[in-house]
Amino acid sequence: MLAPDYHFAVRRLRHHFIDAMTAHLDAVLDMPAFADPADQTRGAALRAATVGLHEVDAPDQDEDVPDLYFALQRELERDHGETVGLIRVGLSRNDLDMTVYKMHGRELLLTQARSLLGLRRSLLNRAEMHLETVIIANTHHQPGQPTTVAHYLAAVEAQVARDHERLVQALERLNRCPLGAAALAGTSHPLDRQRTASVLGFDGPVENTYDAVASADWELDLAAVASSIALGLGRFVVDLLGWASHGWYRLDDGLVQGSSIMPQKRNPVALEHARTRLSRVVGSAGLVAFSHHNIPFADLNDFGPDIQGALLVQHRQLMGALELVVACLEHGEFDEDGLKKAAALTDTTATELADVLAREAGLSFPAAHKLVAALVSKFQAEGRPLTTATPDDLVACGGPALSAETISAALDPLAFVSRRDGLGMPAKTAMATQLAAAGHRLAAAEEALQARDAAFDLATTRLRAGAAPISG
Amino acid sequence: MLAPDYHFAVRRLRHHFIDAMTAHLDAVLDMPAFADPADQTRGAALRAATVGLHEVDAPDQDEDVPDLYFALQRELERDHGETVGLIRVGLSRNDLDMTVYKMHGRELLLTQARSLLGLRRSLLNRAEMHLETVIIANTHHQPGQPTTVAHYLAAVEAQVARDHERLVQALERLNRCPLGAAALAGTSHPLDRQRTASVLGFDGPVENTYDAVASADWELDLAAVASSIALGLGRFVVDLLGWASHGWYRLDDGLVQGSSIMPQKRNPVALEHARTRLSRVVGSAGLVAFSHHNIPFADLNDFGPDIQGALLVQHRQLMGALELVVACLEHGEFDEDGLKKAAALTDTTATELADVLAREAGLSFPAAHKLVAALVSKFQAEGRPLTTATPDDLVACGGPALSAETISAALDPLAFVSRRDGLGMPAKTAMATQLAAAGHRLAAAEEALQARDAAFDLATTRLRAGAAPISG
Amino acid sequence: MLAPDYHFAVRRLRHHFIDAMTAHLDAVLDMPAFADPADQTRGAALRAATVGLHEVDAPDQDEDVPDLYFALQRELERDHGETVGLIRVGLSRNDLDMTVYKMHGRELLLTQARSLLGLRRSLLNRAEMHLETVIIANTHHQPGQPTTVAHYLAAVEAQVARDHERLVQALERLNRCPLGAAALAGTSHPLDRQRTASVLGFDGPVENTYDAVASADWELDLAAVASSIALGLGRFVVDLLGWASHGWYRLDDGLVQGSSIMPQKRNPVALEHARTRLSRVVGSAGLVAFSHHNIPFADLNDFGPDIQGALLVQHRQLMGALELVVACLEHGEFDEDGLKKAAALTDTTATELADVLAREAGLSFPAAHKLVAALVSKFQAEGRPLTTATPDDLVACGGPALSAETISAALDPLAFVSRRDGLGMPAKTAMATQLAAAGHRLAAAEEALQARDAAFDLATTRLRAGAAPISG
Amino acid sequence: MLAPDYHFAVRRLRHHFIDAMTAHLDAVLDMPAFADPADQTRGAALRAATVGLHEVDAPDQDEDVPDLYFALQRELERDHGETVGLIRVGLSRNDLDMTVYKMHGRELLLTQARSLLGLRRSLLNRAEMHLETVIIANTHHQPGQPTTVAHYLAAVEAQVARDHERLVQALERLNRCPLGAAALAGTSHPLDRQRTASVLGFDGPVENTYDAVASADWELDLAAVASSIALGLGRFVVDLLGWASHGWYRLDDGLVQGSSIMPQKRNPVALEHARTRLSRVVGSAGLVAFSHHNIPFADLNDFGPDIQGALLVQHRQLMGALELVVACLEHGEFDEDGLKKAAALTDTTATELADVLAREAGLSFPAAHKLVAALVSKFQAEGRPLTTATPDDLVACGGPALSAETISAALDPLAFVSRRDGLGMPAKTAMATQLAAAGHRLAAAEEALQARDAAFDLATTRLRAGAAPISG
Repeated sequence: MLAPDYHFAVRRLRHHFIDAMTAHLDAVLDMPAFADPADQTRGAALRAATVGLHEVDAPDQDEDVPDLYFALQRELERDHGETVGLIRVGLSRNDLDMTVYKMHGRELLLTQARSLLGLRRSLLNRAEMHLETVIIANTHHQPGQPTTVAHYLAAVEAQVARDHERLVQALERLNRCPLGAAALAGTSHPLDRQRTASVLGFDGPVENTYDAVASADWELDLAAVASSIALGLGRFVVDLLGWASHGWYRLDDGLVQGSSIMPQKRNPVALEHARTRLSRVVGSAGLVAFSHHNIPFADLNDFGPDIQGALLVQHRQLMGALELVVACLEHGEFDEDGLKKAAALTDTTATELADVLAREAGLSFPAAHKLVAALVSKFQAEGRPLTTATPDDLVACGGPALSAETISAALDPLAFVSRRDGLGMPAKTAMATQLAAAGHRLAAAEEALQARDAAFDLATTRLRAGAAPISG
Repeated sequence: MLAPDYHFAVRRLRHHFIDAMTAHLDAVLDMPAFADPADQTRGAALRAATVGLHEVDAPDQDEDVPDLYFALQRELERDHGETVGLIRVGLSRNDLDMTVYKMHGRELLLTQARSLLGLRRSLLNRAEMHLETVIIANTHHQPGQPTTVAHYLAAVEAQVARDHERLVQALERLNRCPLGAAALAGTSHPLDRQRTASVLGFDGPVENTYDAVASADWELDLAAVASSIALGLGRFVVDLLGWASHGWYRLDDGLVQGSSIMPQKRNPVALEHARTRLSRVVGSAGLVAFSHHNIPFADLNDFGPDIQGALLVQHRQLMGALELVVACLEHGEFDEDGLKKAAALTDTTATELADVLAREAGLSFPAAHKLVAALVSKFQAEGRPLTTATPDDLVACGGPALSAETISAALDPLAFVSRRDGLGMPAKTAMATQLAAAGHRLAAAEEALQARDAAFDLATTRLRAGAAPISG
Repeated sequence: MLAPDYHFAVRRLRHHFIDAMTAHLDAVLDMPAFADPADQTRGAALRAATVGLHEVDAPDQDEDVPDLYFALQRELERDHGETVGLIRVGLSRNDLDMTVYKMHGRELLLTQARSLLGLRRSLLNRAEMHLETVIIANTHHQPGQPTTVAHYLAAVEAQVARDHERLVQALERLNRCPLGAAALAGTSHPLDRQRTASVLGFDGPVENTYDAVASADWELDLAAVASSIALGLGRFVVDLLGWASHGWYRLDDGLVQGSSIMPQKRNPVALEHARTRLSRVVGSAGLVAFSHHNIPFADLNDFGPDIQGALLVQHRQLMGALELVVACLEHGEFDEDGLKKAAALTDTTATELADVLAREAGLSFPAAHKLVAALVSKFQAEGRPLTTATPDDLVACGGPALSAETISAALDPLAFVSRRDGLGMPAKTAMATQLAAAGHRLAAAEEALQARDAAFDLATTRLRAGAAPISG
Repeated sequence: MLAPDYHFAVRRLRHHFIDAMTAHLDAVLDMPAFADPADQTRGAALRAATVGLHEVDAPDQDEDVPDLYFALQRELERDHGETVGLIRVGLSRNDLDMTVYKMHGRELLLTQARSLLGLRRSLLNRAEMHLETVIIANTHHQPGQPTTVAHYLAAVEAQVARDHERLVQALERLNRCPLGAAALAGTSHPLDRQRTASVLGFDGPVENTYDAVASADWELDLAAVASSIALGLGRFVVDLLGWASHGWYRLDDGLVQGSSIMPQKRNPVALEHARTRLSRVVGSAGLVAFSHHNIPFADLNDFGPDIQGALLVQHRQLMGALELVVACLEHGEFDEDGLKKAAALTDTTATELADVLAREAGLSFPAAHKLVAALVSKFQAEGRPLTTATPDDLVACGGPALSAETISAALDPLAFVSRRDGLGMPAKTAMATQLAAAGHRLAAAEEALQARDAAFDLATTRLRAGAAPISG
């Protein structure tokens, strides 16, 4: 019944178990009751052996000791006999397990964070390359207005950056240590919970000991963050698939697949696989929700051993999807020429013509809008693109006399973009400013993540070396 | 087709539309192109009329003007004719709608925040009243250990406090203004986006204008926060229902219902209704997820008008559930006597007896655990509760000689609790400290929310009064 | 607390309540205990008054009588005093409510069935009109092969027909009557459960009385059927939106919307609204699932009054979506000319060229596939469509000598289609056969539904008229 | 990128691929174009080699041949060279894959069906053993009425039987063969689709070839059926957990787990694990839904290779949960004595006392109900159980004079049950009839499943042996 849990624990949780047991043993040996030199000596030997478990393979599962915690203890018993009991003073599987699951959860979050940063970097790099690549942006599935690939990609990056913020907030909320809660009511042994938390890299203990073992809302955060990332990126992937179907975005050969029957095929399967992985990430959030639903507020298997696998499934799908999206970005090309030709055939600069009529010919915007709409309608009936409009056409629709230059400048897609140079708009200079700012934000996020990583690594190194905890 | 949207806009979005139109009109009139005194005069009159719309009923829907934005413009046109066009300079329904939806979204979050604070206050108040009410906490659906009602309720409050933090973070992330993004590419008119954002109470504009209209991940935050609250509280409600079925928790008459056929019935239906409302909150998160799933990253109806109703449904279910949970807390009583009697019949102080054997008789904890387990097993076969154990019983199981006082002190549920006096544990003094700290955190959260509320109110008041924006 | 439930009951359940009360009263009066003529006379008067309730407005909710069942009884009490108690003999709100919910549920299913039949009819009608309209079908988001609009629409119809089968099976499974189960254990009064079930149009009673009040898996069927319909149709809507964005499918003016800022816009918002309604249907299935999740197997509010609103929300979204999809089919046109031109520019007949090479020039299919792939690749590099291939081109790629006629016949999209004339394939004759068969299946389904409808109507009419139940 | 798919195909789909390829090859060799004896000879040798693939290990994945279909072909090419091309005549991965997925899907359904039948058998067996074991059934989480364990378990079985019906309907709907659809438009080769379908055990081909490759709504059926089973059984598990926490249901030692800190613990973890597996089954349905959501109606990876793993995850969780539930039924005992004592302490026979007052003392039921409610209320205030009521108590509450025998017979839980002997009610004889009928239905279902199984096995055996298809 518990074989999959054991297997999971061996593969993913073993080092966390050993570290948490080590930290707890230190807390036990710090108690006055074990100040006796003999106890300290035996305890130090046990500690060394516990740390030594990192280097040996995990024991196989045994019917008598169904979980890894007991299996590790049995390993230690061979040389240390009853001394091993020190580890169990004031410790329950309840607080130990939840601590270990949280250590694993923060590892997942950190891994995801690194991947998100890589994606953000790719998006900004690609944006830099397309400051003047005009693309017709759809609204409501219809050609809307010209903008640039840089503008679009920077918008995607901004969304991913918010997901990154969500992730960091989730990590900070998670990072409190349950140890010392024992079964739920704490313990009558005077264990120093602050110290244990600190040496394991936590920002402090979960204060209320019942809360420490009965709640696992950090799992909901993991699921929600992954789901938000997946829903956002899924929309980007839908666009890439759409552009690929027009030939406006072309993936490298390594990311496409042929057909067994249709010789002409070059299917962008990497994008399809990314889409379904993202769909599975969103679906996995449901797995987590159901595990927390309508159960008592108490220590239970539901959000303990039984859900860690689902969190890992979601993590892997997310990581796989992120990898594919980055690959599709790094190994794909926009067809600038094709995009340009397509832009010229649309009527998507109509807004600017109305703006010019409002600004330079004194029409109210609604009147200008109505005039241009009539013009577009007439041209469509005649099969003419709006970019061919002349001063006479405008007058014929009841409009004012504008110069040919004014009209053609208003209707040119690149000019449309260049005139939009306010905060966050696609004009080249505005975009350069925006990308520079985004680059700085990203660099700061990269530094913060490295600092987090380094702090966790340092805590682990010091713990295993038996160094004193860093005060504060 | 659009009748429900219109109805929704009239009931929930009208004032936000008027405020956003007013703020945008101010930005238009600030542009050099309209510096002319005549324009300013006409503009000022239009502004006054726009603000005046707050006081009159919304117009009925009309086939020609299917949405509220156009309907409000038509109202203004009666007196102001073409001048109304000023409002449409550099404005699109895309950025206007998304702004209005966000204003509505933050209103929902603020309302929920107030309700969460109320719940936290109730939980802490009730906890204060039950510092010494011993209750047997289950783990894995079996009697686990004694703790206090205060300890349990404080754990619930700690969980709700994390949800409150999630909510505040969602609110801060949401609170950036899309205005000025126009359709998606911004506008060639030099509108001051910072100013518009500020006068509407936003912390600044959404920088990238494509992002401003194409993304709505704030909706996912709303759904995720509500879902987290609901899953957490659902677990509390399951416990209350369980205690009610034992008679250990008794709701007032106003919250129970009889049966049409079973004369003895007093059904705690308020708790059942709370449960299903919470279930519906969690389910509603799925409504939002599906609306964001596999759609292009572009302006669309899916996350615009078409999802606001679902967000409101979720909000109402959540508010209704919170109201019921608070009512069940305020108008229900723990049966202290019944809890005490029930506690004495369980063997849930076994852990402490093992701890005492380890601490005072020198056994290792695993050996002590094994000894007590044997004792419990023997007693259960004999139908005796563990609380009747004598020194002889212990010795008969191969244990050391402990005094009768030591044994009975170890086995007393209240003593069990009193001995657990470390950080976050249920002993009376430890709990008092914990509750005091929780009370301070809550007071700070209450103040912060009041400050937020006041700031929004002030912004609204100043906007409607035509006051200059507060710089910075 | 119960106001929304009451309101719901008045609007949607009132007639079902009255009918179920009438049927139960008949069963009571049939028992020997009430054979006395005086009882029969009083009973007959009460029955007439009960049936008469159909004609008067429902009473307002009152604090004393919080639900409609009691409110209706109070109405009857005014004239019939204690006689009203006859209705409550051996009856519980548990079995009564569940009966009424099922009567409402089958009404929803029947309504949906009618709508599905209408959609199927529209799909077949449109298919008939496009037996020779060639369209390039995508696979993996890339042009795949030519087929016809008729072939595509008939495939959609086939999928909807399976959903219709699901719906009918759900209806049949639902259609068992809980009455007589009382609270859960049945009753000591000898009520004839078969008869009651029959007069209310059920196919029989739910046998086990505990099952009758504790289970409501028919709600899961409703949710699953609606969800299946919605996921299937959502895919059709995605295609229509894609074709609309190319201009290959054009909605009538009543189904599109302009833009407030982009004068050229004709947004196919009816399709977008259909998509989000369908998304909401799928999401609503989650509402139902959570209401059934991790609750006891017992009579509860969760799947009783508390979920009926969610089922109705799902129903309405589904009905609204179906209406929009039918409207978009009936009031939209395929651009046959545009589709034809687009088809000629693709290389999607490559499969047939390979087939011809295999069939007529003796190549193995893999070898033929490789040859055509090389040809396509060369042409794409040269910017030539495959339809311009000559015998020399084939030979130049190492292929055999085929005649120009053979090549051009193989590469013509319409010829491609015509040659695919086996079972279920798009050639005109094959499609005509297929459509005829589909039409017959549909006509049979229409007749079956009308028969169901008529049987329910007849049962209702007879019940209200006090006619004897139809035996068998 | 495709390694997991390949691995999955090798483990789960290999034999289905070989069988489908064999069946298709037969269809190719039946075409007039290959009637030539030389072709037939080469074809026969290829056929034998293809069937021989069942006996050898699958080839490893290779970068050139990324999927199993191509890998198997390469194996055959070693000895059969270009002849292997026969398999690819008129065949696409599209129709082949979908056929293979369906063969796998029906295998999952059949496995689940066997497991459901076993569960039903266990439920009926246990019910037989508890025809007179009285248990207090809750409604709304409060003691409701006495019934028997047999009645309760038979209700669970009735619900599972409906799920079994759902499963069989899903299997029948699924069992149509996509082969011959090729990429989507069928093929210009005259392949006999009926024959291919039949030899692979399908009930016929999917008629419309576009439908055959573009739709996979059978996957939604699988997910919905599993979800329905899981939600229903989850409710049963919640009850078992509740009874276990009272000690009324006791699992054998192999299904419980101790605690590392609480010596008294016997946690019913098998039930907890069953609950979370069931939760994961329900959640997995979301994985499937998202994969079908907002994608084109066309051949895609989403519902092809990318979702099969999720279907298998759901299947495994379901099978694991079913196994645990059966184990908990077979290796657990109701505490008949404890249940009896608990029943006597409740007031759950109040309904019958009211019924008796109505039946024998001429009160209207509402009046009798009111009288008994007053009596219960008075007794509760006095701390007396209702079972101690005397004739005087009744009179004191304003009731009629009933004999002591009448009262105590009305209030006895077992008598309560015995009097409920109508259709589907818990009285011993009624239950015996009900269980006999349920047993017959189950036996019929078992036979039908065996017949299905045998038919699939026979088809497979005949196919591999090269026997002629069974006509009709």
